[in-house]
Amino acid sequence: MADQITFLGIAGSLRKASYNRGMLRAAQQLCPEGCKVEIFELDGIPGFNQDQERNPPQKVVELKQRIRAAGAVLLATPEYNYGVPGVLKNAIDWASRPYGDNAWNGKTAAIMSAALSRGGGARAQYQLRQSFVFLNVEAVLQPEVAVGSANEVFDEQGNLTDPVSKKLIAQLLQNLAQKLRMQKPQVKAAA
Amino acid sequence: MADQITFLGIAGSLRKASYNRGMLRAAQQLCPEGCKVEIFELDGIPGFNQDQERNPPQKVVELKQRIRAAGAVLLATPEYNYGVPGVLKNAIDWASRPYGDNAWNGKTAAIMSAALSRGGGARAQYQLRQSFVFLNVEAVLQPEVAVGSANEVFDEQGNLTDPVSKKLIAQLLQNLAQKLRMQKPQVKAAA
Amino acid sequence: MADQITFLGIAGSLRKASYNRGMLRAAQQLCPEGCKVEIFELDGIPGFNQDQERNPPQKVVELKQRIRAAGAVLLATPEYNYGVPGVLKNAIDWASRPYGDNAWNGKTAAIMSAALSRGGGARAQYQLRQSFVFLNVEAVLQPEVAVGSANEVFDEQGNLTDPVSKKLIAQLLQNLAQKLRMQKPQVKAAA
Amino acid sequence: MADQITFLGIAGSLRKASYNRGMLRAAQQLCPEGCKVEIFELDGIPGFNQDQERNPPQKVVELKQRIRAAGAVLLATPEYNYGVPGVLKNAIDWASRPYGDNAWNGKTAAIMSAALSRGGGARAQYQLRQSFVFLNVEAVLQPEVAVGSANEVFDEQGNLTDPVSKKLIAQLLQNLAQKLRMQKPQVKAAA
Repeated sequence: MADQITFLGIAGSLRKASYNRGMLRAAQQLCPEGCKVEIFELDGIPGFNQDQERNPPQKVVELKQRIRAAGAVLLATPEYNYGVPGVLKNAIDWASRPYGDNAWNGKTAAIMSAALSRGGGARAQYQLRQSFVFLNVEAVLQPEVAVGSANEVFDEQGNLTDPVSKKLIAQLLQNLAQKLRMQKPQVKAAA
Repeated sequence: MADQITFLGIAGSLRKASYNRGMLRAAQQLCPEGCKVEIFELDGIPGFNQDQERNPPQKVVELKQRIRAAGAVLLATPEYNYGVPGVLKNAIDWASRPYGDNAWNGKTAAIMSAALSRGGGARAQYQLRQSFVFLNVEAVLQPEVAVGSANEVFDEQGNLTDPVSKKLIAQLLQNLAQKLRMQKPQVKAAA
Repeated sequence: MADQITFLGIAGSLRKASYNRGMLRAAQQLCPEGCKVEIFELDGIPGFNQDQERNPPQKVVELKQRIRAAGAVLLATPEYNYGVPGVLKNAIDWASRPYGDNAWNGKTAAIMSAALSRGGGARAQYQLRQSFVFLNVEAVLQPEVAVGSANEVFDEQGNLTDPVSKKLIAQLLQNLAQKLRMQKPQVKAAA
Repeated sequence: MADQITFLGIAGSLRKASYNRGMLRAAQQLCPEGCKVEIFELDGIPGFNQDQERNPPQKVVELKQRIRAAGAVLLATPEYNYGVPGVLKNAIDWASRPYGDNAWNGKTAAIMSAALSRGGGARAQYQLRQSFVFLNVEAVLQPEVAVGSANEVFDEQGNLTDPVSKKLIAQLLQNLAQKLRMQKPQVKAAA
């Protein structure tokens, strides 16, 4: 359908049974009508080297294209050592370069996190928001979806089973869709 | 000399002419007597995958050994998108895992940064300090060495020329050495 | 004029010749057509005590009314000890309580800062943004107006003289006004 | 006893039945031998005004004296709006001024927090640690004492009943005392 909005889902973990990939799969099921979540995998992206920023790996070229083509970005991040996983931050860094070719510029986003800890990965979310100030990414504020004690709310296949968390994800995606609709008139005016 | 202390220097950039590698070279020259700075390069470390944490790449094995063998760690980090470079955070993540085998545990550290911006990369430093709370790394507080407007204070070979910044680095290294000497009695008592 | 938008300007400093009050006065002059900046002074607000949150001081009652009546909020903050001044945070805390009566809820905002340091108070801005996630305040992302070396860009009367900073403030206010116009249809729909 | 160490306990809440005052009372009972916790109350401190920093309120004069006389500082903070309470930050700001007369300079500290939320106030702790970089306060890293779901682990009199939290507080105080003992030789050498 011409008007369907794509949310580009990116998980900040390479682990196969990652809770945060599970968050994205849940989002695929909970997405409001007129929207869909497509998942981009971060495996195989080497460490960012500024000397190669004008000739980036093919996977980075693809990432930047996908970000730009998407209506919005949906990040699902674990928290490693009280911060954003290097794997996710590295992908963000690649896609922001070279200067003047920042693929994140002007995008709208939503953030989720899942973690074993009580806090559910919230510390990583605030660091992402700080990067968003520079990257010029406007992220939905609420609800804050930070799923803690992840081992208790995902099943053995890594699927989210907790109804409260599902409701929060559904609300987050609705707010993201609404934010996009609100911006649409302006987007058209700017074209 | 038996008592010489090694500071393991790690730069958060893979760029050849990186200012932060220049910071480490400056540190090598400014190191107080009885100390030396050895540099570990982060290139070639793949994205952290928890599924492989018990069988990590050889480079990660080496990194963990070097961290443990060092008297202290000296990080020199750029700031990417108002945060820690993914490349550096990824190396920190690898070396912190698996649970119970955190190579950073109990280490003493100092942080420096250099950046084109006025702030000199300080935002990345606070994020590192937040990770250090979890990693159990005690970092020297002052002086805060955040070298801004880097293009003006490094020469074409990427060597630091600014005497004020050099003095700050020298002081930071002295404070790091003093911190280690202060801890030594306890370290012995614990042995 | 019926449609004129009021930005409620709040400075995070009680100092008479405060640079950040100077920022607000500059904003009054640089405000785009159809908007005006009204200033609310924080002096005389006691420390927040939750036991009194249902019977707050008159000044807090007034602050909450003014926030609610305003089209948007414009904060101008110094940075004290690498963070938000207690004076400003205390006012934010009062106006957010009691639970369910958060005057900030759903407001749109812009942040500026001025400081003697090179960084211009940016650290305080990120902490404000973190509070905004909870308070549900959407803040303009860019340009980031953090005026450093304040003693060089304000005159003896505390008025901003630097044309670059003035241009940034004007742009920030325009972006704030544009953000409000974009939200207006939704606001009406919600009424 | 001549060698008894005083920890100056400061709670970041003015509420009478404050959980964080309860944390300090618990600390008084759990303090290791040779140490004691004395409590300083923050009520009655007006908002910081730099114009008065050379002639501060009597309560601030006293606070600075008490900080300087103490062996270490023990902060117990709630989290308001994802940050440090204005009340606590304001006291920190007063005691840090005027420039060159920072009462916090060189102090050793430990941080605790209690909150209704799952995270237990940890966000406020990281902001305090960021201020400590500037203030030159070295804080114990671990254990991180952030008591969440406070309404379930304090009794009606506001006393902590949870044995796990008590054990963490006892460990934190022991680590604080050990840190001070480790620093003592240097302190003497510097005298």
